[in-house]
Parts: sequence; structure tokens; C-alpha cells
Amino acid sequence: MKSKIFLNRAKRLQDLCKMWDVDGFLIEDPIDVFYLTGLQFSLATLIVHSQETALFVDGRYFAFAKNNSPFPTYLLSTLPSQAQGSLGFDTSYTTVKRWEELKLIYPKTKKTEKPVQQIRAIKDPEEIQLLEKSATLLWKGFQHIQTKIKIGVTEKELAYAFENFCKQNGGEKLGFDPIIAFGENTAYPHHKAGNTPLQNNTTILCDLGVVVDHYHSDMTRTFFLGTPPAPLEALKKVVQQASTAALKLCKPGTPVSLLSETAHSIIQKAGFEKLIAHSLGHGIGLEIHEFPRLSEKENPNTLLAEGMVITIEPGLYLPKTGGFRHEDTIVITNSGYKNFYSNLDTNQNTP
Amino acid sequence: MKSKIFLNRAKRLQDLCKMWDVDGFLIEDPIDVFYLTGLQFSLATLIVHSQETALFVDGRYFAFAKNNSPFPTYLLSTLPSQAQGSLGFDTSYTTVKRWEELKLIYPKTKKTEKPVQQIRAIKDPEEIQLLEKSATLLWKGFQHIQTKIKIGVTEKELAYAFENFCKQNGGEKLGFDPIIAFGENTAYPHHKAGNTPLQNNTTILCDLGVVVDHYHSDMTRTFFLGTPPAPLEALKKVVQQASTAALKLCKPGTPVSLLSETAHSIIQKAGFEKLIAHSLGHGIGLEIHEFPRLSEKENPNTLLAEGMVITIEPGLYLPKTGGFRHEDTIVITNSGYKNFYSNLDTNQNTP
Repeated sequence: MKSKIFLNRAKRLQDLCKMWDVDGFLIEDPIDVFYLTGLQFSLATLIVHSQETALFVDGRYFAFAKNNSPFPTYLLSTLPSQAQGSLGFDTSYTTVKRWEELKLIYPKTKKTEKPVQQIRAIKDPEEIQLLEKSATLLWKGFQHIQTKIKIGVTEKELAYAFENFCKQNGGEKLGFDPIIAFGENTAYPHHKAGNTPLQNNTTILCDLGVVVDHYHSDMTRTFFLGTPPAPLEALKKVVQQASTAALKLCKPGTPVSLLSETAHSIIQKAGFEKLIAHSLGHGIGLEIHEFPRLSEKENPNTLLAEGMVITIEPGLYLPKTGGFRHEDTIVITNSGYKNFYSNLDTNQNTP
Repeated sequence: MKSKIFLNRAKRLQDLCKMWDVDGFLIEDPIDVFYLTGLQFSLATLIVHSQETALFVDGRYFAFAKNNSPFPTYLLSTLPSQAQGSLGFDTSYTTVKRWEELKLIYPKTKKTEKPVQQIRAIKDPEEIQLLEKSATLLWKGFQHIQTKIKIGVTEKELAYAFENFCKQNGGEKLGFDPIIAFGENTAYPHHKAGNTPLQNNTTILCDLGVVVDHYHSDMTRTFFLGTPPAPLEALKKVVQQASTAALKLCKPGTPVSLLSETAHSIIQKAGFEKLIAHSLGHGIGLEIHEFPRLSEKENPNTLLAEGMVITIEPGLYLPKTGGFRHEDTIVITNSGYKNFYSNLDTNQNTP
């Protein structure tokens, strides 16, 4: 039963051979290999050929892989004799050094970009379930740390409280160090939680992520204890407008670049264009950042499709004052989208 | 004071320009960037030029980096205008895609291999202190889990006990998922701790790693509860001989390949050559696996030097029966080596 999932994923990849004009793909990114085999290796090569799929690992993993792989397994040292025709490799993963080695083994290597990430972008129903499970745990952890918010608590203490809660409640690990920022620290989009104590009349930003059964979640909320600095209310309003407008477009067929363009244009009209510091969002799944990135310049031909899971996270950052970011994770359905946090967030913070 | 460390490290890298025939290096591996700046970014470019060093980050990190970097900091988007002459990039880190982008910006890029890892291989006294601190915590965690060894305990329970102990005692995180294997599972060098319960007359292998203040530790011990399967005593004897012989060679000037050759030849004479599944060891520091790898084929010209920290970890694995690995981490001194575990391991397991 389980191996059927992997045969099906390999089949979806084989279907891309024609588009890239190759006879197969040579996969070495451990996350891609895990997606296609269900097995974790720090080093392995998977050849998904139009005819057959084969796994190559070194001596450390060979006995284990042979017993558990859904595909025939060989020693990595036998790689040269195993494939025929042209093989696409992922230029976004393969290093220049590895490419030079591969060219000696397979003179007919061909450059492709993120072929497996392209099929990974469309999640199976099982993956969507796990992504929602991960989001639900994250939300519970966020609720847990909200009970700890009081004058004097430090960013680090809240970060630890989040981590402990998640680990005690089924989280495999955190997706990234919790970005918990107070006051002026919220002006740094990727602030590292430190020893700043919470004071009254302060902006609080929590950007959290956890991993459940290999799947990531990602969510940001910004809120205020007491009265925030005056400009923050203005940033909040514009971020919320940008978020609402981008979410409205979320359905199969929308170009991903349109989401950024729309959010950007709202921010621009409000005069805050210079306060943008990052893209509007990203795919999420086995990795925290997956294909596609929501930006105006990248992926001009990528359309939203049923099963895609993405974050929508507009943010504005005013140096030395503070920042406001609002981030949701959604799945594209057959007619629109489902926001993993809208049933959980009774605060009406979520469009 | 602290920035002096980073200026000195940049200087050591600048001194390599001549050897690689370049005017500077373009560094993008986040670990290399951390080593050279003390700052952590998921994405950044550091240009260590013969004249000056400059850091480039995107909008997410810019405000933070500008305030904290030991070097002048610019926006990543200004990269094209900033360097002159030929720039070496690391073919072991740079992807084919990124290389193609870089070639457009700097037509005079030049292939180099792990230039920063080469200087990272020689640790500062401060780094050696942290590496030893990390090893000491690891050893305490290992002693802690030994108190939990009893019939019925599972591999996973010991792994959790190790993780909890380390985190409660100053460990930043684990270096890798603890490899705790019972019985036949020890035949898999990279076994994932599972639900196997401990039975009597069993081989127990613990390969552990923890991170303290960014620095890794790594150690393996294999021992027996009751009487092990007969072949295991034979494997143990040969592994210990190989370990002792390799350690005896550890002093400045020894070619790293000689360590593997020596261990290999002892194993070969014992008739166990086919039971080898991995290299003899590796450098360790900010990463669990660093330059140099101890193998016969790689790094033929690399000599041990004062300040290098490496693991020595011969192992033999008999399919369906079990494996024996013994791993120490040592620092090369001016006349020999210091084993981080020899004062801690009163069991005389350590040569």
C-alpha cells in the first residue's frame, strides 16, 4: 500500500521527462529522495528513468536501504553502469563539483531546475492532512505562549515555552528558531529571540514553525501589549489589506506572480513600498521554503493549482520603530482555498 | 576584541589568494559566513578580497547585519558593483544554477575547493575549548543514559534521555539523531533509534553528538549486555587494534591518508576488509563533518597540523549479526594529540 504512493510519485516525475526532453532524472537532494522513497539518507542517488527507478547508496546505508526501499537498490559505487540516455539533474541542488563528477559518469547530463520540487508543489491528500496537523499543533503552541505574555517575560523564554510545548505534544522538531520579537526588534524580519524583556505599550511579533511527521507549518501574528507606537497601526492596516487582497485571488489558475503584484500595489499606494523586506510567501511542505516562491519576478508561468500549499505573509518594517507581519498558510482547493488558521483563529485576525 | 578574531580569520583566507591564484574569494556557505563574521544568515555573500572584506545580505537581514557585522555591509542587490579582479568560489558549495548567475556578475570567477574549510580545519584555541566543552557534555549525557540501561528499555527511550539531558545541561541542540542500536541493528552503521527493546546477551552501540555554542562533538561506544554473539568479540578486537594504530600516528606532519591506510591494513590482515562500511573519520567543528575526510583516496596531500580536530572511528559490520564501532575525537597538539575522551573514559575503552 505504502509503496504505491512512491510508485505514483515516480510516475509523476517520469511524466515530466518529455517536458525537459530527457530520458530520466538523477535525484540527489535528500528531501527529494525522501519524497520519492520514504527513506532518509544524508547521501544517495535516485535515478528515475523512463523505464525503471533505482536507488544507489553507500555502505553505511546499503543493508537498510535494500530491505526498505520501494525501488531496486545498489551500491553507489556501481552508479556508472546503471543508466542509459540523457539524465536531467537539478541545477538548484547539484554543486559545480558534483556536476563535474557526474559529467564523467554520464556525458549526457542535462540541466533541469527543481523537477522534483515541481511535483512536490502539488500535495497528496495525505500530505495535506499532515500539513494541517502541523499547523494545528503550531496554533496550540501559539495559544500556549500567549498565556505566558506578561511584563518582564523575555523573547527567549517565550521561544523556549513554544519549543517545549510542541515537543511534548507530538512535534518532531521546530521548523526554525522561533522569531519572537518585542518592540523595535520587530523591525528585523528575522530577529533572533534574545533577552529583551517585555514592557508595556509594545509590539509583539511571533513567527513560528514546527515539524510534524516531516511536514512543516509556518505562521506569523503581530499584536500589541497596550498602545503601540503610532506608525504601527498604519502598517497593520496596510498589511491586512494586502493579505486580504492576495487571499481573494487564491484559486486554481491564478498566476502566482499576480498575488505579489496585487499585494505590492496596495502597499505602494499607501506609500510604504520602501518598508517591504521580503517576498509575499512561499510553498511549504517537507521543507519550510519550497517551490514556488511568491514574487513578481520569479516563476512567471506558474499558476496556482489544487493541492498547492503556500504561505501568504506580507510584512512592513520601519527601522528603529517596529514591524508588522501577518502570515497564514493555505491549501488551494478545487474552487478557492482553505486557510489552515481561519477556524483556529477566533480573534478574527485571519481573513 | 571579538572583531579581531574575524579580521584574523579573513587575513588567513586572504593569505590563500596566492595559492589559488585569485584576487579574492566569494563565500556563500552560511557556516563559512558565520565563521568569518560571527553572524548567522540563511542567505548572504561575503567577499574576502585581498584589499577589503564586505558583507552582502538581503532586506530581511540588512538592518541587523549593518549593526553587527565586523565588515562593511551592503544590500545583496548591490553585489555587481563591488568587487574587482578574479574571485574564487567554492565548487563544493555553489550550485550550478548559482554559478551561472555569478558568472554574469563576475566574468572572472574561478573554481576553488573548500577554501574556507581549509582554514577552518585549524582551530583557534577558543574553538578547541568549545569543542572540548561539547565533548564533555556529550560524555556526561552518555554516562546518564548508561544509568537507564536495563532489559526492556528501547533504543528510542535512550535517545530521548540523551537529548533531554543535553538540552537541560547547556546543549544547544543535538548534532544528529542519536544512533542507538541494539543487537542486529548495530549492523546498520546509521541505524535510526526505534522501538526495539533491550534483551539480554545483546550488543549496544551508541553514536552520539551534541552542539555547544555552535561546536559539535561526536563519539561512539559499543558494549555488551551479557554475552554477545561470538563474532562480535573478534570484531571488537580488530577495531580496537585499528583505533590504537591510527591514534599512534596522530601528530603534526602525518599525511591524513596514512591513518586510513594503517587502519585498513590491520583490518585486511584480520580478513575483515569486506565488513568496512565507511571512512576512518573526519574533521569536526562548526559542522559534524568537516575537511579533511580520513580516507585513502581523498586529500592525498593533506598533513595533520597542530589545532586540527578529527574523529577516529573504525567500524566493522557483519550483516544480520551486528557491528562494532569505536569513535574518539582528538585535537592535534604540537607534538602528538589529545583525546577529548581519554580523561573521561575511566573504563579504559579509550586508547
